Amino acid sequence: METVETYLRKHESRFIDELCEYVRFPSVSAQPKHRQDLANCADWLVKHCQQIGLDTERVPTDGNPVILARTPRRRHKNRPHFLIYGHYDVQPPEPFELWTYSPFEPTRDGNVIYGRGISDNKGQHFAHLKAVEAYLKTDTELPCDLTFLIEGEEEVGSRHLTQFLKTHRSRLKGDALIISDNAIPGLKHPALTYGLRGVAALNVQLNGPARDLHSGIYGGSVDNPAMVLCQMLGQLRSKNGRINIPNFYREVAPLTRYEREQLSNVPFDERHYKKFLGVPELFGEKGYSPVEQRSVRPTLEINGLTSGYQGEGSKTIIPSSASAKLTFRLVPNQKPKAIMDLVKNHLKHLCPPTVRLSVEYGHGGEPYIVSPQKPLAKAALSALKQAYGYDPILMREGGSIPIVNEFKKVLNVDTFLLGLALPDDNPHSPNERFHLDAFKKGMRLSAGLWPELASV
Amino acid sequence: METVETYLRKHESRFIDELCEYVRFPSVSAQPKHRQDLANCADWLVKHCQQIGLDTERVPTDGNPVILARTPRRRHKNRPHFLIYGHYDVQPPEPFELWTYSPFEPTRDGNVIYGRGISDNKGQHFAHLKAVEAYLKTDTELPCDLTFLIEGEEEVGSRHLTQFLKTHRSRLKGDALIISDNAIPGLKHPALTYGLRGVAALNVQLNGPARDLHSGIYGGSVDNPAMVLCQMLGQLRSKNGRINIPNFYREVAPLTRYEREQLSNVPFDERHYKKFLGVPELFGEKGYSPVEQRSVRPTLEINGLTSGYQGEGSKTIIPSSASAKLTFRLVPNQKPKAIMDLVKNHLKHLCPPTVRLSVEYGHGGEPYIVSPQKPLAKAALSALKQAYGYDPILMREGGSIPIVNEFKKVLNVDTFLLGLALPDDNPHSPNERFHLDAFKKGMRLSAGLWPELASV
Repeated sequence: METVETYLRKHESRFIDELCEYVRFPSVSAQPKHRQDLANCADWLVKHCQQIGLDTERVPTDGNPVILARTPRRRHKNRPHFLIYGHYDVQPPEPFELWTYSPFEPTRDGNVIYGRGISDNKGQHFAHLKAVEAYLKTDTELPCDLTFLIEGEEEVGSRHLTQFLKTHRSRLKGDALIISDNAIPGLKHPALTYGLRGVAALNVQLNGPARDLHSGIYGGSVDNPAMVLCQMLGQLRSKNGRINIPNFYREVAPLTRYEREQLSNVPFDERHYKKFLGVPELFGEKGYSPVEQRSVRPTLEINGLTSGYQGEGSKTIIPSSASAKLTFRLVPNQKPKAIMDLVKNHLKHLCPPTVRLSVEYGHGGEPYIVSPQKPLAKAALSALKQAYGYDPILMREGGSIPIVNEFKKVLNVDTFLLGLALPDDNPHSPNERFHLDAFKKGMRLSAGLWPELASV
Repeated sequence: METVETYLRKHESRFIDELCEYVRFPSVSAQPKHRQDLANCADWLVKHCQQIGLDTERVPTDGNPVILARTPRRRHKNRPHFLIYGHYDVQPPEPFELWTYSPFEPTRDGNVIYGRGISDNKGQHFAHLKAVEAYLKTDTELPCDLTFLIEGEEEVGSRHLTQFLKTHRSRLKGDALIISDNAIPGLKHPALTYGLRGVAALNVQLNGPARDLHSGIYGGSVDNPAMVLCQMLGQLRSKNGRINIPNFYREVAPLTRYEREQLSNVPFDERHYKKFLGVPELFGEKGYSPVEQRSVRPTLEINGLTSGYQGEGSKTIIPSSASAKLTFRLVPNQKPKAIMDLVKNHLKHLCPPTVRLSVEYGHGGEPYIVSPQKPLAKAALSALKQAYGYDPILMREGGSIPIVNEFKKVLNVDTFLLGLALPDDNPHSPNERFHLDAFKKGMRLSAGLWPELASV
């Protein structure tokens, strides 16, 4: 292990140069004009993995290719096999004018490098690649087999990943999946993320009169769909932040005392948080801390409202329709389809006979959880402690990573999320960046992780 | 009088041709490209009034010219003087594709003529012009002086009319103003409209986070402005259709038993009305009939809602803001400014500390009412009965005609609304039309009106 760490330290500045080279590809999966850039980026990655010493394959899919890179096969069969997931595609850089440096010309400023995709997700899986390089180049024996699966469509919904997992099921049989594609609260607060929220999206529309009506001639004698929408949606959430839909909480697994204790360790500064978000006061479900509210409790958000006239000035109409986009964040063991049904039924119940209701189901994603008391989780915590020098936190993430459930379903493999990014890295925003210290800690974490996991 | 009526009957088909000539001008005041068409239309009207025998002036304003056309001066001073208001400008014809016939190529189809502006308002004031022509051309003595005031900016808010009235105050001193710019329930239900609703417009905005937030990362711990907006607006109207704003009804003048009796004569077919509007059920303030709800009771309408993502699919955000456009229809003696203040104060009271509220005042217009028991009103009712052959209805209009208040304020003159149009004339919509029978009844009404009014 010391040889590995020495190698990592010695080649640090080359690794940074290589990461910048990787970030220079504008591998924006959402924009067709970048198709060739994605192909070039995949080619570069293949070559890089090969140079490291990995058996690397560029596997075509109906979308962008998936890169599979394995440590060289060892003789005995019973060695553990871990998977590492990453993605080489990035979010669109727009709006360009808000970037301090050019998004695809990675630029170091102090201890930080700016560039689109550098923390989400190129820098994070690159740290793992460099740790494995250190093992291979110093001829240090890895205590396990490793397979990197680096896809090119994460930012557009991993459209072809499930099929890929099915097709390559036998090669991807593994003991656990490691994903570093999220953030930890800080370098003094390394964290194992053992759960994710799910999501359920619905569009709600109310139709009243066949056309917008003159509010003078007809107003008072017919209902107003925008008012009805407000009244219906307004009832879905109580004053104490609870969601007012019958049976909505029925399947929610209770939080254990252990989990709440762990979550209470997540650093949280209310004043800083309010200032960062720009809100005058926080609001959330009574009886839960803000950290719990945003990660382990289900939510209802109105994502958008549309009705009638939205231009300058005013237009004296009764709008013919009003609609809203809703998303629910779900927690174990809520099921997206069941939640959508509950919502739809309740909306039907609330809807007066003066308008016509239609509810359209959008995308759904299941919540995810793995026991933080599993031996592999404990091994990961131990590696975190060694790499960062601080006691790690156990946390759950408020967002959704649908592919985690796909890995579980298709490959029956547990996922442990070991984020390397920091909260101010601006993923999906202008001025995305990655802290060099986070990169270095990440390489050290990865180097120490495999012996810990393999020893379970 | 018989000479006058004979003249009207004899020249009917010429009148229709002339009306079509008038409608052929695309005098769309909202569209700058039609400025010359407005000027041409005004010139035509001046010439036409002169041919009738009226002393006619084309009075320039800072906008489109106003046409003043007076019956020739008589010797003795104490003859009554009545004003007739009309407008030669029309609504934009768009969308063209919904017209059966070309909007500015008036086309007769059965007993109806189609064309933009034919009922709103060219055909209506033209009926009055033709009645006066009959008096003048047959040398029948008019029992009063008449002044036509026909403006060219009604459809863009009569921007220069108040100034015009002030400038020409002395020439416009009159005993009453007659406006035919609305509809009656049917030819068997002629009506005198003696009141109008006012209006008060407000824009409401709630600001939450400084930017749209990721609903996974932050959702649950901050409030959602769209939800707060729904909850605030939803409380403004109760289940029984009452407006839930303290003191909102304080200044509402109670309806007299006489008025309610009169309003109960307005024909109303609920099934037909629902079908015409396309609504599954009606809704309105409990304790009032639909006719009362839409004409003599104040209302609140949400005219538009705007928040967050409104495109295809879904976007998992907490929107940074949400806004609504509100208009209130007011009845005597509610004052627009006072109502806006009440609304703003109540919204402030309802607004939680988690969002920032801003309320912007829009336009306001006072309600209007003139006693339907004044002698001039009774005279008008008598003229209606003679012209249409049916008992006239007394009604109030749910819409607002702000200029009526300007005439009252500047000239201290009462307005009597004698609509000639019918409910299916499609003003402001494609396929605007005017019934030839309505045109004929209108000419006969005008012919009989002046002796009745002058005899008061």
